[in-house]
Amino acid sequence: MSEIVGKAETLIEALPYIRDFNNKIVVVKYGGSAMLDKKLEESVIQDVALLKLVGMQPIIVHGGGKEISKWIDKVGKETEFVDGFRKTDKETMEIAEMVLNRLNKYLVQMVERLGVKAVGISGKDGGLLQVDQKKPNGKDIGYVGDVKKVDTLVIDTLLANDFIPIIAPIGLGEDGETYNINADDAACAIAGALGAEKLAFLTDIEGVCKDPKDPSTLISVMSLEDAHNLIEDGTISGGMLPKVTNCVNAVNAGVGRVHILDGRIEHCLLLEFFTKKGIGTAIIDTEGGLYENERI
Amino acid sequence: MSEIVGKAETLIEALPYIRDFNNKIVVVKYGGSAMLDKKLEESVIQDVALLKLVGMQPIIVHGGGKEISKWIDKVGKETEFVDGFRKTDKETMEIAEMVLNRLNKYLVQMVERLGVKAVGISGKDGGLLQVDQKKPNGKDIGYVGDVKKVDTLVIDTLLANDFIPIIAPIGLGEDGETYNINADDAACAIAGALGAEKLAFLTDIEGVCKDPKDPSTLISVMSLEDAHNLIEDGTISGGMLPKVTNCVNAVNAGVGRVHILDGRIEHCLLLEFFTKKGIGTAIIDTEGGLYENERI
Amino acid sequence: MSEIVGKAETLIEALPYIRDFNNKIVVVKYGGSAMLDKKLEESVIQDVALLKLVGMQPIIVHGGGKEISKWIDKVGKETEFVDGFRKTDKETMEIAEMVLNRLNKYLVQMVERLGVKAVGISGKDGGLLQVDQKKPNGKDIGYVGDVKKVDTLVIDTLLANDFIPIIAPIGLGEDGETYNINADDAACAIAGALGAEKLAFLTDIEGVCKDPKDPSTLISVMSLEDAHNLIEDGTISGGMLPKVTNCVNAVNAGVGRVHILDGRIEHCLLLEFFTKKGIGTAIIDTEGGLYENERI
Amino acid sequence: MSEIVGKAETLIEALPYIRDFNNKIVVVKYGGSAMLDKKLEESVIQDVALLKLVGMQPIIVHGGGKEISKWIDKVGKETEFVDGFRKTDKETMEIAEMVLNRLNKYLVQMVERLGVKAVGISGKDGGLLQVDQKKPNGKDIGYVGDVKKVDTLVIDTLLANDFIPIIAPIGLGEDGETYNINADDAACAIAGALGAEKLAFLTDIEGVCKDPKDPSTLISVMSLEDAHNLIEDGTISGGMLPKVTNCVNAVNAGVGRVHILDGRIEHCLLLEFFTKKGIGTAIIDTEGGLYENERI
Amino acid sequence: MSEIVGKAETLIEALPYIRDFNNKIVVVKYGGSAMLDKKLEESVIQDVALLKLVGMQPIIVHGGGKEISKWIDKVGKETEFVDGFRKTDKETMEIAEMVLNRLNKYLVQMVERLGVKAVGISGKDGGLLQVDQKKPNGKDIGYVGDVKKVDTLVIDTLLANDFIPIIAPIGLGEDGETYNINADDAACAIAGALGAEKLAFLTDIEGVCKDPKDPSTLISVMSLEDAHNLIEDGTISGGMLPKVTNCVNAVNAGVGRVHILDGRIEHCLLLEFFTKKGIGTAIIDTEGGLYENERI
Amino acid sequence: MSEIVGKAETLIEALPYIRDFNNKIVVVKYGGSAMLDKKLEESVIQDVALLKLVGMQPIIVHGGGKEISKWIDKVGKETEFVDGFRKTDKETMEIAEMVLNRLNKYLVQMVERLGVKAVGISGKDGGLLQVDQKKPNGKDIGYVGDVKKVDTLVIDTLLANDFIPIIAPIGLGEDGETYNINADDAACAIAGALGAEKLAFLTDIEGVCKDPKDPSTLISVMSLEDAHNLIEDGTISGGMLPKVTNCVNAVNAGVGRVHILDGRIEHCLLLEFFTKKGIGTAIIDTEGGLYENERI
Repeated sequence: MSEIVGKAETLIEALPYIRDFNNKIVVVKYGGSAMLDKKLEESVIQDVALLKLVGMQPIIVHGGGKEISKWIDKVGKETEFVDGFRKTDKETMEIAEMVLNRLNKYLVQMVERLGVKAVGISGKDGGLLQVDQKKPNGKDIGYVGDVKKVDTLVIDTLLANDFIPIIAPIGLGEDGETYNINADDAACAIAGALGAEKLAFLTDIEGVCKDPKDPSTLISVMSLEDAHNLIEDGTISGGMLPKVTNCVNAVNAGVGRVHILDGRIEHCLLLEFFTKKGIGTAIIDTEGGLYENERI
Repeated sequence: MSEIVGKAETLIEALPYIRDFNNKIVVVKYGGSAMLDKKLEESVIQDVALLKLVGMQPIIVHGGGKEISKWIDKVGKETEFVDGFRKTDKETMEIAEMVLNRLNKYLVQMVERLGVKAVGISGKDGGLLQVDQKKPNGKDIGYVGDVKKVDTLVIDTLLANDFIPIIAPIGLGEDGETYNINADDAACAIAGALGAEKLAFLTDIEGVCKDPKDPSTLISVMSLEDAHNLIEDGTISGGMLPKVTNCVNAVNAGVGRVHILDGRIEHCLLLEFFTKKGIGTAIIDTEGGLYENERI
Repeated sequence: MSEIVGKAETLIEALPYIRDFNNKIVVVKYGGSAMLDKKLEESVIQDVALLKLVGMQPIIVHGGGKEISKWIDKVGKETEFVDGFRKTDKETMEIAEMVLNRLNKYLVQMVERLGVKAVGISGKDGGLLQVDQKKPNGKDIGYVGDVKKVDTLVIDTLLANDFIPIIAPIGLGEDGETYNINADDAACAIAGALGAEKLAFLTDIEGVCKDPKDPSTLISVMSLEDAHNLIEDGTISGGMLPKVTNCVNAVNAGVGRVHILDGRIEHCLLLEFFTKKGIGTAIIDTEGGLYENERI
Repeated sequence: MSEIVGKAETLIEALPYIRDFNNKIVVVKYGGSAMLDKKLEESVIQDVALLKLVGMQPIIVHGGGKEISKWIDKVGKETEFVDGFRKTDKETMEIAEMVLNRLNKYLVQMVERLGVKAVGISGKDGGLLQVDQKKPNGKDIGYVGDVKKVDTLVIDTLLANDFIPIIAPIGLGEDGETYNINADDAACAIAGALGAEKLAFLTDIEGVCKDPKDPSTLISVMSLEDAHNLIEDGTISGGMLPKVTNCVNAVNAGVGRVHILDGRIEHCLLLEFFTKKGIGTAIIDTEGGLYENERI
Repeated sequence: MSEIVGKAETLIEALPYIRDFNNKIVVVKYGGSAMLDKKLEESVIQDVALLKLVGMQPIIVHGGGKEISKWIDKVGKETEFVDGFRKTDKETMEIAEMVLNRLNKYLVQMVERLGVKAVGISGKDGGLLQVDQKKPNGKDIGYVGDVKKVDTLVIDTLLANDFIPIIAPIGLGEDGETYNINADDAACAIAGALGAEKLAFLTDIEGVCKDPKDPSTLISVMSLEDAHNLIEDGTISGGMLPKVTNCVNAVNAGVGRVHILDGRIEHCLLLEFFTKKGIGTAIIDTEGGLYENERI
Repeated sequence: MSEIVGKAETLIEALPYIRDFNNKIVVVKYGGSAMLDKKLEESVIQDVALLKLVGMQPIIVHGGGKEISKWIDKVGKETEFVDGFRKTDKETMEIAEMVLNRLNKYLVQMVERLGVKAVGISGKDGGLLQVDQKKPNGKDIGYVGDVKKVDTLVIDTLLANDFIPIIAPIGLGEDGETYNINADDAACAIAGALGAEKLAFLTDIEGVCKDPKDPSTLISVMSLEDAHNLIEDGTISGGMLPKVTNCVNAVNAGVGRVHILDGRIEHCLLLEFFTKKGIGTAIIDTEGGLYENERI
């Protein structure tokens, strides 16, 4: 009986969040460990389906996990590197597109299995993602693109008709060629263009910690100013730097709140969105004010 | 951490129910103990608000609790009895209408406090409830009515605009007079007219038991045929008889499933609607088939 | 036959007004004599129903007449006075709410009897009226409120679905308590928030007269400037002062025209709205221009 | 003051009719004296405008008055007769079409002057009226047509956008030629196709009288059976016969009620539709039941 | 087979134009030779119907050709001239209105014969064209008007319901009188009020030529500045001057592009709108940019 | 000039087809030679884009051409055959899905390049295609499916929002596995479920010929009865048999007309749909009547 009471309390705890996020757009960048482990995968899909069912408008942007490399190996292709960047030649892009689109439909299938409607698209559909070639340090690394323009019409259509859009990070250049896009970048661009309420990155870390080696130093909420300072003083560095920079950009582009979540925790999306305590690190623009149920 | 996992599992457990009940109409008859205890009252209101927030269309039909008697005493009015029935003369009706309408707005206020929209109406608004005089055994017991016709337009309007309708059981006779209606009857008539998916009675018992003295004999799901048999063999009798008869009528009137819930348990609505095990007794028309997630 | 011609001429006389007021919102503050006399009551309800039927959007805001005092006496309650103001303690408020809500449904019933749809609400429904405590000269007179915010959603919904909203002047404070509101104030706040075309006060006087003792000195149309001057020179004083001040406030809040009508005349609303001569006093913002069929 | 009370009473008398006819389609066949006298013309147009303003959906179908003959004379054209029917050759049809269309726009202009929107069309617009050649007794009388098919799309569009459709009785044959249609026939066909609530003929008689010479024998309401009997026993004969036959056909085609009104009385439409006594003769299908406010 | 390939190429050539003009409003001024020759008439109607069918929103504004003079002669009316202008007295206006409205319905009939919906209106319908009296050099030339105001509601309604509006150039003055309007002027005023994409004049010349006697000097595209210069240097003069001035006015009023087409060429509208080469002269506001498929 | 006239005539020739097919659904099965030749590919895409632009609702269902085999070879996979059928094991299915989805997005990209909106989906999106395992002669040939159910919601959504749906023939089994579907079968099932007006197969033959070796014996229009007879008498046999059987099934499933077109002819869709002569063979249900512009 006390178990039953606990259940009810959990549901009631979610009430203010469900109310406040009603009809709000939530972009989930899905990648990393959460993509490689079947149980975590299942939990992410369940979370997204539940977000939809309680009235939010979730969107998944996914990466390709380790599948792309697997298939490049399978066809016996050698990879060239430029300044440490893997060069994406035409054949590599062809394989990447095949793998990403198949993975895309696999995620659709997972969501549909829960009785929730989904449609898988890439940045080519409806001209969603238009790109320029990415040239790190002016170097040509092939068919890798930076998002130049987002045409949200196809997403708007799917959302308005109650489908969860699931998006593969592929775009078209002005040259009519196909380009690969970093999934984090694609998620940021899409969330910004939609004025999403939330953008959540499923990562392989617990969040941003003052001392990366000490999980107890996790920073729960970080303002843009905090982020700036922590970058300046070197606390945020290494692999965390581009992640946080991306988050800051998304907030500046109009996303209400960006979350770095630990994708290794089952149901991390639900725990962040629907419980008082939350998990991971949230980057916010404090000038926009906190939610009524803001955790401290 | 295990607590946190439990929370997530509770939310996920609710997923199929939230999906299946999306946009479905649920009429809650609110009365008895659940109305007299502040904590239970709070829990009922929270439950109804949550049902709304996760996409259902809840409607409250309420009784007058002990407030009506309190005010009759207050003005020093004597009550006449006819064959055991309290006679509702014009002044009694006047007091009942005042008390019910005030209670009605109090419930509106409770729901609104949770940030969910509600509008309180009585059966007079939009001509919702039209009645004939009730004459038990042909005896005149004054301004007490049986529902003759339900005009759902005002409820449809409120639901379509995302308000929770909260309804006081008062109707108009053809003579232009105001009549009191038994709240159970009003709830049945309204649920039937709307073709509601569910009608839930918050009662002061655990449900229907084979042996009323032994809670362990609770009947979880009862078909119309079961109900018929249990009435025939005397298992269902006494105060339980009119309750179950009402449920049977509602099922026959097109309500998908009628629940007798123990209103003395906090969050009994959530526990019934969103957990596998459920509580109380459900009366169903088995010919209509069970839900996919039917408990056994 | 000449009678029949007269009838046709009356209907045709109304044509330009019906055309010009099509779909316009008209708030009627209903109180005073018009509420105490059955025949006048019937005529007000008929007028409002006709306004609706010919295409206007009427709204009734009503007071409590003498019913509240009657019930306070009935339960043997003593009334405390503060600086001449009746103090509204919790029990008084409770009685006032009961009486107002019952009266509210009575008016609904009167309108519905004419085959026109109506819904009765109070300022609690849909969070319509949010109040601050009123403190005349800083004195605490209990649960009496000044309107702080009007959320017109519930009215918009009812109007869009062809119901006449009938409103009891009760609001909610930030403390979650119930407050009584002066019906004139409530009508002004609601008319202003809706940008009503007209606000009509049914009063027990003929309108504003230069010499209050001489009805032949009635001022037919008064600009804001006229009102200002007449207040300054003392022509408008006594009980008339707050009335006219309220009218001026409403015009300043965006109401097109405010009428002080003699509620003791049967069908005073129709006569004012649909005949060339009109009755009572109209307060207007001349800068907004006169109607095409403006009387002189 | 008693005059003012009379005015209010007239408006209130109209209330139940305005309510019951809300949004109902009313086809007015306009011709005869009402078309030749400026004052009557003005009163018909005012009546139609008022019907529109109080929520009905009026439609005018008009004849050509004496204008067609005037212009035929003007161009010095001789008219041929076949069995007493005037033969409509191509040039006659050309003149008729010019005259009818000009008259049509004149009526539009009259309505618009009252601030009410109107659009003038003929049976060619949107393919409204498709005809077969009319051959009385098998004789060829030229370009005169019987309505074969009504495509109401253009009328539906105008009504849905709040325009009063004003219709000239001209149609197209399968041979692509233009045909004149008797305005009574056109009005019947249109009212039938629209399932109009009412069809009113403005005529030069008082209605159907038992003794045509004695106005006091006017038949106020006539069932289809009454009409049948009065035709059988010869009471209805001469010029009245085709009129009443047309009315019977319209009722059989689904029109709720057909009125033969005395177009020589100013505002005859208002008097019939909005007063208890009514005027003229109404032909009804009694099986469909009488209106609630049926006169006797 | 090569013929068949040619057909396909023609259709594909039209693709970019069909795409770019989708849902765009195109006003066609129909008059001159194209109105007098049956074959040209047929080709204009086919063109307009096709424009509609491929997704554009064509509107026809027509003149009266030589029909008006023909009927003036027919009734034996003498024409008075004022400073070279034909004076339009009341009877002339009456005839003009009859002729124009009949012609209007004739065009409707031609379009409907192709299975495309059309409605014929004049400037009186829905108060479309309101005029002031035209007074060239201050002289009174009778009932001739300049467009003062365009109320596009009736056109909007027809377009929204997929009818082609066909418009006779007649307007109403403030004096309630009927006025004739020059069809070029009416077309300009309507195209400007609608913000049309294109306005095409069907004329009896090939377009604007540098040397009017040498068709090979045709100016294909002309900017506002070009037009100004060519008027200044006298290249554009005589009958061409008012035409070009009208075009310039239309561009300034917001029309995207104005075409002077040779109405003597069959299907000149299609050839201009759907082929790369185009025909005639286009006047454009170069600041607005050229179409993607702009010819040179 | 004669060339220019020819162009106009071609456009006008298309007019009745554009009118009659307005808003009609047309399913194009795209495969064979038309998929392997760049020029043919371009012409098919242009045709489909033009169909959309002139108001039809085209849908593409495509096969995988020779790409699937190419990639199977590339990864060095051996193919097993069962009774002459290629067995589709899990890895083959994985490759097929990758290839089809990439090809799908390539077609999207081709259409978008023409400025027309498209979205690529597979039968997994929105649960579009649900399959049973196909077992020819009871033999297990792996992950090959027969369409069991079509849920058209995702197609309806895309059409309603003006996207061309481009569909890869992949479905989901009840076992949650991915199945390959024959593209002809998928096109038939989809066209039938949508009640398409037309279904066109782009093939490598000229159509059905009485003597397959003599193109001059091409059958232009074939009724269901004709098809039945020609199958019975052996005229239709070999590879043509399943094609025609498929067409017959589609007509029986409610498709208006099924075309076997020669995909080796450029713009074969336009030539069939928009010219009088047409090409290829059409299978129709003559009971449904011919089009107005039916060729003989």
